[in-house]
Amino acid sequence: MSIIGAGNLASHLYRTFIHNDEIQLEKIFSRKAGRLSFVQENELKSHSLEELGDPDIIFLAVKDEAIVEVAQKLSIKNGFFVHCSGGNELKVLSEFENHGVFYPLQTFSKDKRIDFRNIPICIEANSEENLQKLKDFASLVSEKVFEVDSEKRRALHLAAVFVNNFTNHLYTIASDFCSENGIPFDILKPLMKETVSKLDTLPPYSAQTGPAIRNDKKTIMAHMEMLNEEHKKIYKLLTASIQKIHGKEL
Amino acid sequence: MSIIGAGNLASHLYRTFIHNDEIQLEKIFSRKAGRLSFVQENELKSHSLEELGDPDIIFLAVKDEAIVEVAQKLSIKNGFFVHCSGGNELKVLSEFENHGVFYPLQTFSKDKRIDFRNIPICIEANSEENLQKLKDFASLVSEKVFEVDSEKRRALHLAAVFVNNFTNHLYTIASDFCSENGIPFDILKPLMKETVSKLDTLPPYSAQTGPAIRNDKKTIMAHMEMLNEEHKKIYKLLTASIQKIHGKEL
Repeated sequence: MSIIGAGNLASHLYRTFIHNDEIQLEKIFSRKAGRLSFVQENELKSHSLEELGDPDIIFLAVKDEAIVEVAQKLSIKNGFFVHCSGGNELKVLSEFENHGVFYPLQTFSKDKRIDFRNIPICIEANSEENLQKLKDFASLVSEKVFEVDSEKRRALHLAAVFVNNFTNHLYTIASDFCSENGIPFDILKPLMKETVSKLDTLPPYSAQTGPAIRNDKKTIMAHMEMLNEEHKKIYKLLTASIQKIHGKEL
Repeated sequence: MSIIGAGNLASHLYRTFIHNDEIQLEKIFSRKAGRLSFVQENELKSHSLEELGDPDIIFLAVKDEAIVEVAQKLSIKNGFFVHCSGGNELKVLSEFENHGVFYPLQTFSKDKRIDFRNIPICIEANSEENLQKLKDFASLVSEKVFEVDSEKRRALHLAAVFVNNFTNHLYTIASDFCSENGIPFDILKPLMKETVSKLDTLPPYSAQTGPAIRNDKKTIMAHMEMLNEEHKKIYKLLTASIQKIHGKEL
């Protein structure tokens, strides 16, 4: 395998590959030398796209916006190139004879280690043969490998934005709110964990609680008064959306 | 102890109390007999506020909106009455000589069992003596007991709405979105769990990822096109809020 990229995902792929006895990493590429500081083995580092070795699969672990641009710079066209993006179609790599998608449905931050075995990997490829090759490979790193076409992957990526990006932003708002009021954010963690665990036994629609679904106007008004204009807008919109979906529309 | 109420919280308090050897439950009250079907012991059921026994503490585990109304109906005024609400001040019970607050910071659904030992309990009372009494009691059911005054509890309750109610609603939207596209919602669960676990090592501000913080306009536009008007509004507002807080304002 070779990896192109030096961001959060690339660093996690690197760690996963070098710790797996069944996978041999040939090269990890970044234009800027400094960005590969997480790679301990100097012989694996590459700063030229001409030096990717002769890997079975080349992972384009670059920003979504950069995939096409990087692909066009690659002079070798006969490798098996896969991108790792939820939002990009398979066909963005169609100039390569062999191409595919290896999309790990997870959030990656450089400083947080994560076990790949539990990460759902969504795969897609331009031929049955390449799909099998990618499937065999993905099964070496994860127990959850799914064949997902570009259209479904796009929907999944959007769902991931709601459950991860937006949720994390609500955590950020709550965390700031705790700081402002001298409350340790940690006190909310059991609630945050249970909010997710609950869904092992209930669908989220049935798990909904709180002033919006109870249509508890007094509490809703009191909350709104405590918020700044921006957060009030978020509170209002999400409260209305909860009430609408649960038939509590005013 | 006696409990007034028959909702989600009351049923969880009931189960926690009867399974704790150090706690004796005297009565659990509900006006409507049918609502106490989760109580196995007939002798514990009460349908008259005159029959609450002579408990050390009486838990008003009723809806936020009903606390004052129920309190006013109580003919005995010399018990130690505590409400369990995040959004109500201590003083809503000030007509009772002994009063307090026992606020478990957690989300309760009738069909989902939960271990009280890990639930943060926020307590407050009208006197040092009552506070100590409540603290001693709370320590029997939870390892995490915090003294939190009414103002801080109100802020905490608002933060809880963001991290639980609103987050769960985003899960509901994502779940509907999965159904519409023939994707099992379960595939998102490792991501949802990691979104919370990540915060054991990173503050939420630093954990933010996704198209909004990258200002990836192409993906943002593609996502918006996939959403209905209501969900588009939510997407737009939360994306703008992420960009604002992270200095990516357009």
